[in-house]
Formats: sequence, C-alpha cells, structure tokens
Amino acid sequence: MQVHELILNEERGVSLTALVQSVGGEFGRVVKRPAILILPGGGYAHCSDREAYPVAFAYAKAGYQAFILRYSTGEHKTWPNPLNDYEQAMELIRSKTDEWHVFPDKIAVLGFSAGGHLAGCAATISKNRPNAAILGYAVLAQEVADVCQSGMPVPIDEVDQDTCPCFLFHTRDDQIVPVRDAIEFQRALLENHISFESHIYAYGEHGFSTGEKSIQNGEFCSRVPNWVQDSIAWLTDIFGEFGDGRLEAPACPPRTNADREPHLSVDCTLAHLKRQTGAASEILEPLFQEISLPEHSPLFYNMLLRTILRYRNIPADKIGEIDQALRSIPNQM
Amino acid sequence: MQVHELILNEERGVSLTALVQSVGGEFGRVVKRPAILILPGGGYAHCSDREAYPVAFAYAKAGYQAFILRYSTGEHKTWPNPLNDYEQAMELIRSKTDEWHVFPDKIAVLGFSAGGHLAGCAATISKNRPNAAILGYAVLAQEVADVCQSGMPVPIDEVDQDTCPCFLFHTRDDQIVPVRDAIEFQRALLENHISFESHIYAYGEHGFSTGEKSIQNGEFCSRVPNWVQDSIAWLTDIFGEFGDGRLEAPACPPRTNADREPHLSVDCTLAHLKRQTGAASEILEPLFQEISLPEHSPLFYNMLLRTILRYRNIPADKIGEIDQALRSIPNQM
Amino acid sequence: MQVHELILNEERGVSLTALVQSVGGEFGRVVKRPAILILPGGGYAHCSDREAYPVAFAYAKAGYQAFILRYSTGEHKTWPNPLNDYEQAMELIRSKTDEWHVFPDKIAVLGFSAGGHLAGCAATISKNRPNAAILGYAVLAQEVADVCQSGMPVPIDEVDQDTCPCFLFHTRDDQIVPVRDAIEFQRALLENHISFESHIYAYGEHGFSTGEKSIQNGEFCSRVPNWVQDSIAWLTDIFGEFGDGRLEAPACPPRTNADREPHLSVDCTLAHLKRQTGAASEILEPLFQEISLPEHSPLFYNMLLRTILRYRNIPADKIGEIDQALRSIPNQM
Amino acid sequence: MQVHELILNEERGVSLTALVQSVGGEFGRVVKRPAILILPGGGYAHCSDREAYPVAFAYAKAGYQAFILRYSTGEHKTWPNPLNDYEQAMELIRSKTDEWHVFPDKIAVLGFSAGGHLAGCAATISKNRPNAAILGYAVLAQEVADVCQSGMPVPIDEVDQDTCPCFLFHTRDDQIVPVRDAIEFQRALLENHISFESHIYAYGEHGFSTGEKSIQNGEFCSRVPNWVQDSIAWLTDIFGEFGDGRLEAPACPPRTNADREPHLSVDCTLAHLKRQTGAASEILEPLFQEISLPEHSPLFYNMLLRTILRYRNIPADKIGEIDQALRSIPNQM
Repeated sequence: MQVHELILNEERGVSLTALVQSVGGEFGRVVKRPAILILPGGGYAHCSDREAYPVAFAYAKAGYQAFILRYSTGEHKTWPNPLNDYEQAMELIRSKTDEWHVFPDKIAVLGFSAGGHLAGCAATISKNRPNAAILGYAVLAQEVADVCQSGMPVPIDEVDQDTCPCFLFHTRDDQIVPVRDAIEFQRALLENHISFESHIYAYGEHGFSTGEKSIQNGEFCSRVPNWVQDSIAWLTDIFGEFGDGRLEAPACPPRTNADREPHLSVDCTLAHLKRQTGAASEILEPLFQEISLPEHSPLFYNMLLRTILRYRNIPADKIGEIDQALRSIPNQM
Repeated sequence: MQVHELILNEERGVSLTALVQSVGGEFGRVVKRPAILILPGGGYAHCSDREAYPVAFAYAKAGYQAFILRYSTGEHKTWPNPLNDYEQAMELIRSKTDEWHVFPDKIAVLGFSAGGHLAGCAATISKNRPNAAILGYAVLAQEVADVCQSGMPVPIDEVDQDTCPCFLFHTRDDQIVPVRDAIEFQRALLENHISFESHIYAYGEHGFSTGEKSIQNGEFCSRVPNWVQDSIAWLTDIFGEFGDGRLEAPACPPRTNADREPHLSVDCTLAHLKRQTGAASEILEPLFQEISLPEHSPLFYNMLLRTILRYRNIPADKIGEIDQALRSIPNQM
Repeated sequence: MQVHELILNEERGVSLTALVQSVGGEFGRVVKRPAILILPGGGYAHCSDREAYPVAFAYAKAGYQAFILRYSTGEHKTWPNPLNDYEQAMELIRSKTDEWHVFPDKIAVLGFSAGGHLAGCAATISKNRPNAAILGYAVLAQEVADVCQSGMPVPIDEVDQDTCPCFLFHTRDDQIVPVRDAIEFQRALLENHISFESHIYAYGEHGFSTGEKSIQNGEFCSRVPNWVQDSIAWLTDIFGEFGDGRLEAPACPPRTNADREPHLSVDCTLAHLKRQTGAASEILEPLFQEISLPEHSPLFYNMLLRTILRYRNIPADKIGEIDQALRSIPNQM
Repeated sequence: MQVHELILNEERGVSLTALVQSVGGEFGRVVKRPAILILPGGGYAHCSDREAYPVAFAYAKAGYQAFILRYSTGEHKTWPNPLNDYEQAMELIRSKTDEWHVFPDKIAVLGFSAGGHLAGCAATISKNRPNAAILGYAVLAQEVADVCQSGMPVPIDEVDQDTCPCFLFHTRDDQIVPVRDAIEFQRALLENHISFESHIYAYGEHGFSTGEKSIQNGEFCSRVPNWVQDSIAWLTDIFGEFGDGRLEAPACPPRTNADREPHLSVDCTLAHLKRQTGAASEILEPLFQEISLPEHSPLFYNMLLRTILRYRNIPADKIGEIDQALRSIPNQM
C-alpha cells in the first residue's frame, strides 16, 4: 500500500490523502478497485480527524482505495470553495485510475455532518458526479446549512433524476443536525425514483463516526455502529461484488425503475409504458388486454410491468420474451 | 410454556394464540415479562401464517410473551371489525397480566403489511394503546389502505403526541406497499416529537417476514433479516433490559423532549421553556442571560436545554441543580 | 403449529415436548423439516427449564421442528435409563416423520452439561443415531460423568468412525465441567476423521444457555451468545439449506475424507489410495508418477488426492475425469 | 496517521511497516494505544501480502497501532533469523512507545500459517514477549514446521506458565496445516492454566486471511470471517477497553487462576491453597471446616476457592473479607 499526501490548494490548506492498495500479484483477482472519497465533518470550521482515517481503514479492509479530502474550511469556507475542492479531488482521482488502480465509475463519496452537506452537493450538482453517496448525520436542508454559512446550495432542493444512489444514516434525537434533513432527503430521492438505503437509529449524539470506543463522542444505541458494515454491503449491491478481474453485476440498480433507460423493458413502470406510442404500443396494447389490468389506481401505474406480469402468473420465460421485444424499442422519454 | 388458543369471535373466525412462558423457578430473575402482539399481514383478505409463528419464536427466545391475533379478514374485514378485534385482544391480555405474567405497560404490537395498518391504528387511535409499535412494510397511507377497503382510518393522519414509539422497516423498491408510506409516517412522528427507529433497505420483495430461508418469498438484500434483532434491541431500549424482578430503566424515552411531562426539566426544549411564565421564568431568565443564547434560529429553539448547557460547558453538577429546580415547577403546556 | 406433550415413561417422569410447525400451504417450499432434539442439563439431578424452551424457540424460528426430552433424572437417573429415554424419543420421532413433517435423516441432538453427556452418548453408542450433535459445555470425560453417577459410558472413549458430525461450545474457565472435556473430544473426532466445529470462549460461567438476559446465569464474554446462530449455520452446512420441496446438498460432508465411502474418489486420502490394489492401482500409479509426489511425509499422505492435484495445477476438468474413473471402483477398506 | 517503512535488516530484506495513528487532539480520550504486530504467512518462503495490510486495517479501525513485520524468508529463513527479526521489531516498538503512542504492555502478535509458527515462538520462547498472541491456521507442531525447515522450535513443546494468552482460529479440514496443531496447542495452554479463546470452523481452505471477497482464496463456511471481530473483542477483554486517558481493567485475566500471583487470593485453586502453610493455613483451615468440602476429587481441587464459596452460598461481602485477608499473605509457590 502507498499513502500519498497531495496538496490540492496550498493557500486554502486543501489536501487529499490517498491510501492506495496494490493489485495483481497476490491480489490476482483484482485489477482495479472501487473507491471511497471521505469528507469529514466539522461544521465547515475544520475537518474532523475522527471522521477521517478510522473511516478510511474500514473501507480499505473491504478492498477499497480510500481517499480523504480535507476541504476548505474556516476563513476559506466561502462557497463554492468546498465544492471546487471536491471537483478537483474527483477529477484527480479519475485522471489517475490506472496509476491508482481505481474503477472510474465505482467511486463513492462519504460525508459526515457538514461533510455530508458537501457530499450531498456532490451527489446532486457537481460536475464530477460520484457513483454513490453515503450521507452520515448530514446537513441536507437549508436551516443548518445556513448556520454554517448562508447562501450554500441546499441538497434536498437539488435532487433530481440524475442523482446517484444514496445511503443515509442519522439518529432520531440528533441535536445538531435534525433528523428532518434525512427524512426530507429521502422524500426527494423517492420522488425521483433514486435507489437508496436509510437507517435512522433511536438515539445517539451527533458525531459518532464509526462508533469505535477509541473515538467515542457520547452515548448511542446498540445499532449505531452497524452502519459501517451495512454501508459496505450496500455499496457491494450498488457497485457489484469483487469477481475475477472485474466487479460482478450489481444486485441493485441505481433507479427503482427503467423509465429513463435508453430502451424500454419490463422494468419500466406501467404508467411510463402506457405513454409510449408506435412500436411499443403495438406490443403492449394486446398484452394489457390479455392481463386485464385492474382499476386505474396510481398504485398499479407505479408498479413495474415485470411485477404485474408476475402477479398475473405469467411464466418467467414469457416475461423474458416480452422483455426482449421491448428492449429493441427506443425509450420515448 | 403454555400455548393457549382462544376464540375471540366465533362468527368472524377471530382467534388469539398465546405463547406463555413461565416465570420464577429457574427463571428467578423474571416475575413478569414484556409482550408482543403480532398482527400478520394478508391484505385484509386473510392472516398470513408466514408472519405468525416464525415471528413469535424470535420474540419468545428473547424472553417475551408472544401473542398472535388472527383478526377479521375476508368477508368480515369491514371496519371497524379488525380494530375491535385488536381492542378485545389487548383488553384480554391486560386483564390477565397476573395469569400470563405480563407487564401491562410493556406490550408492543407488531404488524406486517395490512397487519401493519392495523398496528398503525392501534398505535394512534385505539382505546387500548400499545406501549410500542413495530411496523413492517406497513400500509400507513390512504392509497393502499383503500385498495384493501375504502373508508378505513389512515394512520399517517392520526399520529399525534400520544402516539407510542415506533420501529419501522420497509424496502425501497416494495411494489405492493410503496415505501412512501413509511417515509410519510416518519414525518408525522417527527412533527409530534415521538421516538422512533427506521430501516429502509435497498431492495427486497414485499412480505419477507423474518427473512428465514424456510419462508423465503423472493430476493432481498443482505441487511433485510437484521430487523428482527434490531427491533428486539430497540424494544429493550424502550422497555428496559431484564433486571432482577423488574425491567431496568429504559435507555430511550418515548418522546424526544420532555415538553409534555407533568413538570419542567432540562430535557424540555428551549422554545417550550421560553414560553413559561411565573416561577419558571424566575429561574430561567437569569440562566438565559448567563449562557448568552445565540440568534433566534429555530435550530436552537428546538434543542433541549440540557444540550445547550452542555455545549456551553456548564458542568454536569450545575446542570443537575438546574434540572432539580425545574422539576419542582408544573409544566404550563 | 402444534405443541404435543407426550409421556414416554410415567413412572420415571420422562416426557417429550414436540413443537411441530406446519408444512405446505403458505410454507409451500417446505414438505418436511429438519429437527432438533434438545436435552437440557441439570447434572442428571433434574432437567433445566433454562435449557429447554428458550433454545427450542431459536431453532423453531430457523424452520426446525423442535423437541425437548425431559429424560430420567434424580432417583431414576440410573444408567441406562437416560439413554433408553433418548432411544425411545428418537424412535418415536422417526416413526412419525410423516405426521410431524420431519426428514428422518436430518435430526440433530443438542445437549447441555449432563444433557451434553447424554447427547455425546447418542452421537457415539446409541442405536438410533442422530445425524448431528451439538454439545454445549458438555460432560464428555469420565471425571465429571462420575460426579453425576459412576459407571456411565464416557463419550470421549466411544468416538469412532461412525460418530456423527459435532458442534462443540464451552468456556475456557468453566468451573463445573472443565474445558478439557471439549478439547479431548475434539482430539477423538480428529483421529476418526469426523467433521466438527468448535468454539471455546475466553470466559463465562457454566450454564449460560442461549445467553439471553432474561435467563442470565452469570458473566460471560461478548462472543458467548453467538453459538446459537453459529450452530444453526453449521447445521445448514451439514444438513443442507432449505430448497424447493427438499434440502439442498450439504456444503460440508460428515467426514473429512471419503476413505469410508462405498467407492473411491479424489476425496480419498493419498494414504488410502496408495493402499488400493487392482483396478485402482492401474489408474493411480501412472498418475502418481506424473505428479511426482514429494517425500513420504505423513503430511502429504493425509491430504486428499483432490488437494494434491489442485496444488500440482492439474486443471479442474482433468481432476473431474480422474474422479469419475475412481468412482467406478469399489473401496477396499 | 503516519506510515513508516523501516529496514530492520537490509541484507535479509527484513522490514517493519508501522501505521501510527495520532493521539490527543480530537482523539482526546487516547494518550497511548494498544498495538498489533502482524506476521504474515508464506511457508517461510515469502511474506504474503494478503495477510499484511488488509489485516492491519481491521485493527487500525479498532484504534490499534498496527505493525507488519516482513521477516527473513527464502534463502534467509535459517533459524533463528526469523525469531531475531521478531525480537528486533518488538524491541524497536517498545523503545518507541512515546513516539509511537503505544502501551508497552499491550502489544499483541498476530501470525498466520508459518507466521503463526513465528508468533507461537514469540508467545513461548522469545526474550521480548508479546502480551497476547493471535494464531491463525498456525504451524505449531513439528510435522509442518519441519516441512518449512527442520530444526525450528516447536511452539506446542514450549508452552509453559509464562506463555501469554492466546486466540486461535483454524478450519477443521485445513489441508496445509492440520487442525491437530491447534488442538494440541490448546491442550498445552490448558495444562499451563493459560487463558485462551479458540474457534475451529467446519470447513475452509487454508489461507483465507480476513475472508474479504477481494482477497478470497477459496471456499469457506459462513463463520470464518467472524474471527476478525471476535479477536478484537477478545483483545479488549485481555487488554481492557479504551477509557479516559488509559485502558480500563481487563475483563479476562491472563491465567485461569491466581496460583502464580505474588499474593494469595480467593482466585487461587483449592489445591494450591491446601498446600499453603503458616499464616495462610490459619485463615484457611477453619474456613475449609466451615464449608465442609466434599470428597477429594480432582474436580473440586482445581476449582477456584471463590467458586466453591459461591456455590456454598457464602455472601459476596464475606467472600470479599476472605479475599482481603488472603491478599496480605505472600504466595508460597
């Protein structure tokens, strides 16, 4: 392993730490690795050490390249400095995917508190989008963002259909960043059909990081430290498991339906398919008649065609045929 | 252990199964037990076996008395039959707390899907309130409730400050009951200052029950089965751990602030304390001046006084004194 | 689920409790279930309630039929009463595999302390052998067996090549049954090539059962309660996972080599194959020359041929061919 | 964090990598850290990368300083080169406990396979003893040690009463290092009253390291990767949990009885106390009469006096008094 400390901006004290593990040789299965870019919290006043290396170690153990960005804070926190630091870091990582053995499309960002605000911005409005975002007791709404500094973007307001999949964790009684931020962000992800996972724990003081006793902030309930392994398992679902010389196919797609994919499929919603005309219509109308769809309730129209067919006991191979036929038709979005 | 099968309503086919473990003797520490009342799902068309005994066993192993209510379904599902069945079951359990060795104020309800709708009603509008509610991929909003039958209460709309603490779990891509139900219910709990815990898993088909392979419905991500142990740990936080002849003090209060307790304390929010007049005012005004509160942002006003004092580095014993002084003053709600 | 209480021997107060879960219907994948026969501890003075139902619930949740045998104790403990009770129970279960939906060759015995002595006897000398044995802080050597009553069989001395696979757990500092019993039993299993799993925890008072707080005996280290889920996962490896209408192929064979199987295979040890004459010899001698076996160290001779071929980089399909050829040859034991 | 690469012996290619985390500042609770010295496997032919950094990361995340020793292998493996390398590394770490923020008496060694042989030697015959040893599928008996090179010490033969506490893990069907090594080593620890924890998993190929998919060697059962967290929890029992500016008192003593402590106590065995004369006798004889000890079976004589008193229902405060009285008497070993 090599540890690189890179100065990204001397004047603002911005640095990127890279923990780069080797590939090949004894790690013969591995030609490249997924990566995690960690954005520690600190209210934009500083970057917390407690949310830096201890977190990096957890992901490194799981086989990830780990990066820690100490972004602009304190007198240099003026927006968009922190976002520019993120862009610079992400561009650098993606420019060095050979040297640092990184899959350029398998880079997650992980931000805590104010670092979670920055991660939320990365996930929604950055030029160099992460492929997944983990948001820990993150500042996602305007109220606390304004406490750090006014005029920053509000991640909740910026979620759209291009937002990456997200993993959120928070405690119910967080006194520093209200759990409302996490709940509202989930609503935004929901409305935009973005895949996510979310854990809101019964109680725990803000800032618990990995939950290890050596960095313990205060009290928290027994489930809190589980976010570490759960987020790694989630990233495995989103990025795919380590295979031979590659990552396997992901178990979980980035969106909950295929309505925005280039071609149609049975993983589109009924509503979306009903809006299609032309060639799609010719395949679908007879099918709709055959399965005699129920009343026009929004519930059914938001279902995937695949699900409706399964609940109508259409055999799997028949579903496969319909899927094949649809996949030849460009999606009229 | 004794298993009792009780007919609650012969005509409607309503029964209550009770798994009653002994106390005393070799279970010397235990004089009474907390209890769980399980409401299986089934769309109000039937009560699912998959969400009955397998679930009961998990809680029984943890020391709970476990009850399974097979409530009115099918032709008998007309509201308020199911709710009446719940009331009858809960009244019966609370009338037999000596015979069945149950703490009457430590009874949780656990409902899946449509049973989660019934559990949500129990938690919000029943006469015989549960002391906690676990809601598994539960029908909590009007849309799916109306699919079962129209005109039933909508739990999301009924949440208020008397709702019990809740534990919710759901999958992001649930095709039968949209995860929106869980998210909106969280918002309602949030607005009413109710303690809760929530886990929304990345993917998994509706109806996974305990997640055991022997009752497997479909695919789900690796975190899904964790809800069982997490909910038991959460109930331990809410009810208190088994101690000698009693349950220990709970680690987590039912509300996130003490604004509705009979007396004031440092666990009231600043906003609530600022509204107090008279004796409270005389203690608090000098204190507010001393700690020189920051700007009047909603963020600080929703904080507990205890937290603000800690962040102002007021020593713990001084906080204790202030708390003692406040606890002598009746709460002007 | 049905709970049956059966008197096996009225005079001696011997009973069998059966927790029988249904199959089919909503448990459509399941036509029969594996089973666990629980033998509580109690020094042969009594049968402990703490090691009865709480344990049964854990396995029932995992889909097992669970049986609790309260065998002859106290004035009736005279050997071979307890063993006869076991035989009677196991015969009864195997006679009712249709009625009780049990796979007759997937029944494990689980004994604690003195019940572990009985389980150890079941595993080694009974007429009706269990298909696996879980031995919890079990009396397996003569010293403590004699404390209960002298003249009983000593499981350690009875282990042979027909002993079933075993899972042992114990604490290092057990003051009632020395951990020496578990270690010596492992040596016996080792010498007889029997599959096993073993967990010896750093500290914990004898008699912790499932480790649940509601039945807590004394102090124990954090790993102790893990035996429950670990033993269930182990049984899944030994019996096979729940599949459609059956159990899948086991992941772990009952013996560590195939030297006692009816036919030869690449899972026989090199030593065993070297002893073969005739047809086996004709296949093997050229092979041995080709892979140029190293020095005649016992280490290599105890290896499976399969392993040696893999380490010699023989391709998998070639190993398959050799295996096929060998499997046509009867084993000269 | 700083990573230091130190050449310990240029000619033999011996190096020590140090991952040194900071203390104080945001890690305010922490003034020094416990440490782990990792000895990768490789048959003394090389040091495996798979058992180096991935392992270090797990312990670093838990708050440990982590060191990786690449000791003499290949042409330089001649004994006692590897042991000398260990001594040099341990002396260096203990000479830099201020600079590297290490508790000098809280350093564990962790060795895999041949590295486990070296760790076993460190634990039993080194000059600079580790305070705990974790032995992963370790070469501990002569047979495999001789395969690496003949004439090396045999750890099993070197265990005595000064051996540190050990944590062993191995798989039942390990084809490279027979599980017999682990079982025999346990017997030796047992006979010398050394605390240990041991996990023998049902199946798994030799060399699984942390069990992470990215470094997967072959197949192994589901319990195998648990050794990582279990060993960290065990070390917490042996070293003590992180407290304020120190480690808390350990939960588990290094020996299973106090027979070798400087003074007597109720944690001495009955046998040992029975051998005492003089002042000890005067306290103990009346006590022995009072509790009327049972027959002279070895079972009771190996019990701690504390346990016997508890089972005789002597109240805790009385036990405390006896303990106090004994602790004033020097131990006649």
